[in-house]
Amino acid sequence: MEKRQIGTYKFKVEPFSEDFTGRIAWGNLGNILLRCAQKHASERKFGFGPTSEEQWSWVFSRLIIEMEDRPIANADFRVSTWASGVVRQFTTRLFSIQDAAGRVIGHAYSVWALIDLRTRQPVDLAQLSHFQNVLLPTPNFPIKGPGRIRLKPEETAQAQAIGRVSFCDLDSNGHANSIRLLEKVLDLFSKEWYEHNRLRRVEIAYAKETFYDQELHFYKAKREGGVYDVEIHHADGTTAVKAQLTFAPGKPTAKP
Amino acid sequence: MEKRQIGTYKFKVEPFSEDFTGRIAWGNLGNILLRCAQKHASERKFGFGPTSEEQWSWVFSRLIIEMEDRPIANADFRVSTWASGVVRQFTTRLFSIQDAAGRVIGHAYSVWALIDLRTRQPVDLAQLSHFQNVLLPTPNFPIKGPGRIRLKPEETAQAQAIGRVSFCDLDSNGHANSIRLLEKVLDLFSKEWYEHNRLRRVEIAYAKETFYDQELHFYKAKREGGVYDVEIHHADGTTAVKAQLTFAPGKPTAKP
Repeated sequence: MEKRQIGTYKFKVEPFSEDFTGRIAWGNLGNILLRCAQKHASERKFGFGPTSEEQWSWVFSRLIIEMEDRPIANADFRVSTWASGVVRQFTTRLFSIQDAAGRVIGHAYSVWALIDLRTRQPVDLAQLSHFQNVLLPTPNFPIKGPGRIRLKPEETAQAQAIGRVSFCDLDSNGHANSIRLLEKVLDLFSKEWYEHNRLRRVEIAYAKETFYDQELHFYKAKREGGVYDVEIHHADGTTAVKAQLTFAPGKPTAKP
Repeated sequence: MEKRQIGTYKFKVEPFSEDFTGRIAWGNLGNILLRCAQKHASERKFGFGPTSEEQWSWVFSRLIIEMEDRPIANADFRVSTWASGVVRQFTTRLFSIQDAAGRVIGHAYSVWALIDLRTRQPVDLAQLSHFQNVLLPTPNFPIKGPGRIRLKPEETAQAQAIGRVSFCDLDSNGHANSIRLLEKVLDLFSKEWYEHNRLRRVEIAYAKETFYDQELHFYKAKREGGVYDVEIHHADGTTAVKAQLTFAPGKPTAKP
């Protein structure tokens, strides 16, 4: 039963995919999680995309990654993923990340909606029996699910940075790539910050599609316990992305 | 003999690795070429890196990619690579890219130096018999090698764009990642430009290391025949990167 529900995929930290700490870069890790989601769903015949007969497409809404440690250069690691449930029009997909020895080194939590591209309305997931059959409810998943991220009006008075969506930021839908948006959030912190603080948990919520050449306004606010809330606004003030980063003090452990 | 000299590696255009035309993004393709170089060299015991006993490291100096077409989403493709020769302290490594049917769809040409990290001087490659033994001279390689790229003083009077090296731009050496620098060059052209012009050839030369938070000044000059010369300067006016892009007019062919 579990075999049908859980997909497990092997990876290696490929050369030129690490960040300056010698570990797989957060963006590359995020991309691998998305690839696993796609593989798992395709293998079970619910990997709908814009070219599917049904004209349905999965829309990525939220991602949380919480890592004890990230694998270093050339290390083997595995990602297991499964769909755990449906809440209203949203599906929850969970991930467990294991090192080469099988030790769990991280978890991820993602939220998706299945959209009918003709009507832009969510598809009723209860109708999809082959999808319902692979759901694996996971009441004791060890990381916290989505939280509330909200900046106060005075925290969005002055942008910390302003950027634009460029050609290389675009995905195959012509939207700003969700992983690139994650990287833009991570880029709000300096190299020196990452040398002295270890990123433990990233939560990112995609609120509004972002297109080529749109101006992005970045806001960041410090909370208690090493937590930072981030918002990316479009020039008209609407919120495109919300994110929350949780750091633990301390250097990343030494490079291999 | 050829089997020992040429390494061939299989890939698939993974989900979430395409650009907005639905083809593998140039940056992801460039990253795959670097991975193939590393694999090929490691398998033949000359894949030196900072952790090698010799304390030698390959330094990437120049990359040319010329593509008839880039593989589309989910397409299988193969990359063959071999070291073709040594000129002074530099090694030439060549690549051929084939589609799933074995048809050659592109070529690449790269230049590397092997540096002794203790002295920062190039290693005498003639001493490395196991390296000399795999060289495969390739007099009739079908794409042009490195050319001359130089902007006139008046062409660098006014920067087209100014950027900074951010955390996610850094590689495991703490330098600006060479593929990220390539992407910053590609980002000097708009989405609309790429909708009406097909990038055929990219040449990029890395002249000077670039570090965190350095200000990058981008200059671009139009030449004849769809050619653009690009330079990235540091704030002190030194040249960090030179690049040349060759476009053919015409839309990319339709998405799959």
